[in-house]
Amino acid sequence: MDDKQSVGIVQTQHFTFAAPPHEMLLECGRKFGPITLAYETYGELSPARENAILVLHALSGDAHAAGYYHAPGRDAGWWDIMIGPGKAFDTSKYFVVCSNVIGGCKGSTGPGSIDPETGCPYALNFPMITVRDMVNTQRVLIDHLGIEQLLAVVGGSMGGMQVLDWAVSFPERVRLAIPIATTSKLSAQAIAFNEVGRQAIQSDPNWRAGSYYGESIPRRGLAIARMIGHITYLSDRSMHRKFGRKLQDKTGYGYDFSTDFQVESYLRYKGDHFVDRFDANSYLYISKAMDYFDLTQPSGTLDEAFAQVKAKFLVISFSSDWLFPSYQSKEIVSACRHAGVEAIYTEIQTDYGHDAFLLESEQLSALISNFLAHGMIG
Amino acid sequence: MDDKQSVGIVQTQHFTFAAPPHEMLLECGRKFGPITLAYETYGELSPARENAILVLHALSGDAHAAGYYHAPGRDAGWWDIMIGPGKAFDTSKYFVVCSNVIGGCKGSTGPGSIDPETGCPYALNFPMITVRDMVNTQRVLIDHLGIEQLLAVVGGSMGGMQVLDWAVSFPERVRLAIPIATTSKLSAQAIAFNEVGRQAIQSDPNWRAGSYYGESIPRRGLAIARMIGHITYLSDRSMHRKFGRKLQDKTGYGYDFSTDFQVESYLRYKGDHFVDRFDANSYLYISKAMDYFDLTQPSGTLDEAFAQVKAKFLVISFSSDWLFPSYQSKEIVSACRHAGVEAIYTEIQTDYGHDAFLLESEQLSALISNFLAHGMIG
Repeated sequence: MDDKQSVGIVQTQHFTFAAPPHEMLLECGRKFGPITLAYETYGELSPARENAILVLHALSGDAHAAGYYHAPGRDAGWWDIMIGPGKAFDTSKYFVVCSNVIGGCKGSTGPGSIDPETGCPYALNFPMITVRDMVNTQRVLIDHLGIEQLLAVVGGSMGGMQVLDWAVSFPERVRLAIPIATTSKLSAQAIAFNEVGRQAIQSDPNWRAGSYYGESIPRRGLAIARMIGHITYLSDRSMHRKFGRKLQDKTGYGYDFSTDFQVESYLRYKGDHFVDRFDANSYLYISKAMDYFDLTQPSGTLDEAFAQVKAKFLVISFSSDWLFPSYQSKEIVSACRHAGVEAIYTEIQTDYGHDAFLLESEQLSALISNFLAHGMIG
Repeated sequence: MDDKQSVGIVQTQHFTFAAPPHEMLLECGRKFGPITLAYETYGELSPARENAILVLHALSGDAHAAGYYHAPGRDAGWWDIMIGPGKAFDTSKYFVVCSNVIGGCKGSTGPGSIDPETGCPYALNFPMITVRDMVNTQRVLIDHLGIEQLLAVVGGSMGGMQVLDWAVSFPERVRLAIPIATTSKLSAQAIAFNEVGRQAIQSDPNWRAGSYYGESIPRRGLAIARMIGHITYLSDRSMHRKFGRKLQDKTGYGYDFSTDFQVESYLRYKGDHFVDRFDANSYLYISKAMDYFDLTQPSGTLDEAFAQVKAKFLVISFSSDWLFPSYQSKEIVSACRHAGVEAIYTEIQTDYGHDAFLLESEQLSALISNFLAHGMIG
């Protein structure tokens, strides 16, 4: 029997808080509530409540990180390769929590949720949210679960931003921090790609200033945004290896504007598929939260942001990730060291680009399981 | 007085050929004509007719490579920094020719041109064109100008593809070939970016299957395509240096979907500006021609494609160009050497990315002027 198992059938749970008049103050200055977070847990919280790991998802992720809803092989969680008995996040040892971010569309309160004051979806009346807001809402959930201190916070891409913000905002509550393929502030290039994606959504006539719920959705705009994103998650080399210049129809070029190359049909499929599972307004809000993320503010330096941090860090980047290149992870490691924060850094050699954190990797699993067990990687 | 001067006031000329029944056979198998090429020339053709240089433009370029139409400082040609008395392409020595590609929208026959059979614009009835078709039409123009052998063919990006195709298709007619920031076949990643741009255009309801002439044009779709392209022409580092995370409104984040960052407003400006000067259908056709470009076909190897080449090569790439990375230029150089073709290769160290070939560069100018004068760069 394989010692790496699935956590099995799981159910998404919901926790609601910040109901008026106890709304939460968001970073944009608006008070907002009630807030529901969808979340899942895997494994058992130990009696001492010191084995909890918070897993944080990326732009298009959700609370469903592991297991399946109905039957094995379908609806597997987005990090199922990493979470389960015998896996990197070993659920026979650890209690793993994953929640959908505020602003999302998978059970947490977001622009598609009903505004109790109006009885209609918030749409663009939803407040702008930031990574700090995501973390602040997660903190309430962690309180609710009775967890004083997290053994670890971990996530890739935007999940890694939340890891950094957890360690900075709540230094007493995080023992180990594992930011993967991430950055302490989004680059101009990444902001630019996000902005073009947003423009594509907002240019779709079905978007109607965000008020499309119950009517035709901005499918084409969202699909284009996803296609742009998808290219940035891969590397030139991985696309070359996977597709190269392979044709859909092997008899030759079609000499028309239908699909000539396999890479084109792959992208179209990815775009179309995404539209069926994600809300365009959530894409706008969450991509904007990524743009806003800048740990160097307001102090001006990353060193200062890390001054109060108590967690020990394992920082991981991927050699072919050009969206969140390794130099951005090195900046985090450098700031940790200047602030006297213990930090281990590993750049994993891979062709898979930014998406490598979602893929099967013995090296990634070994790094993480050793770090969780011993606070070291060797 | 500065010894680098402008070529002064210039005029675009037009040459029409391949009128029925003498249509040109295009690579897609369709016979097509009449074909008009818009072109400009700078300097004087020598009595021996051996000082002619053909300059080939990139996706969004045109025949207006140097000088100005009305008054200095306005409407300068796209490579004015390189073409003129005392410049890299010294018009006191050389006769420089630049023509707008077939499929373009700047005076050459393209999808926006009137189909003489119907009296209406071709729109999507325009045939699919390839880089080989661009080169074949240029060959007719060069014949018309009475030039037996070109001293040099030169161009960056898609212009470089045409350079390669000239040297391969008409080996007797090219003495020096200068492909810059280009490739012998478009990569999967570059095809993917082109495809997303085309999807953006085709998703714009104003596109109406290409039949928008005389009505509202697909502004937003074309602007999005241009924005995507523009990001790929710059480098992460140059965007960081130029924009970083600088805000439009320095008092802080706007917390809405208007423009927060300068890089966003820059991109929007670039997109909007482009729409006023370029036809969306030309964008579709020309980007598709780039996708189709693959010198390794039909033989299967680049070495074989270069077997008949007689030109001497100066291959130039830019260290931060991630759209046409240096390894792609090295493949060209390697194929030249295997085929016994003389080739000099230089990678210019720069942060400016793919667009570096359009920017002022003493190193680029010196390399080219030495190569033209002596067939060497030292």
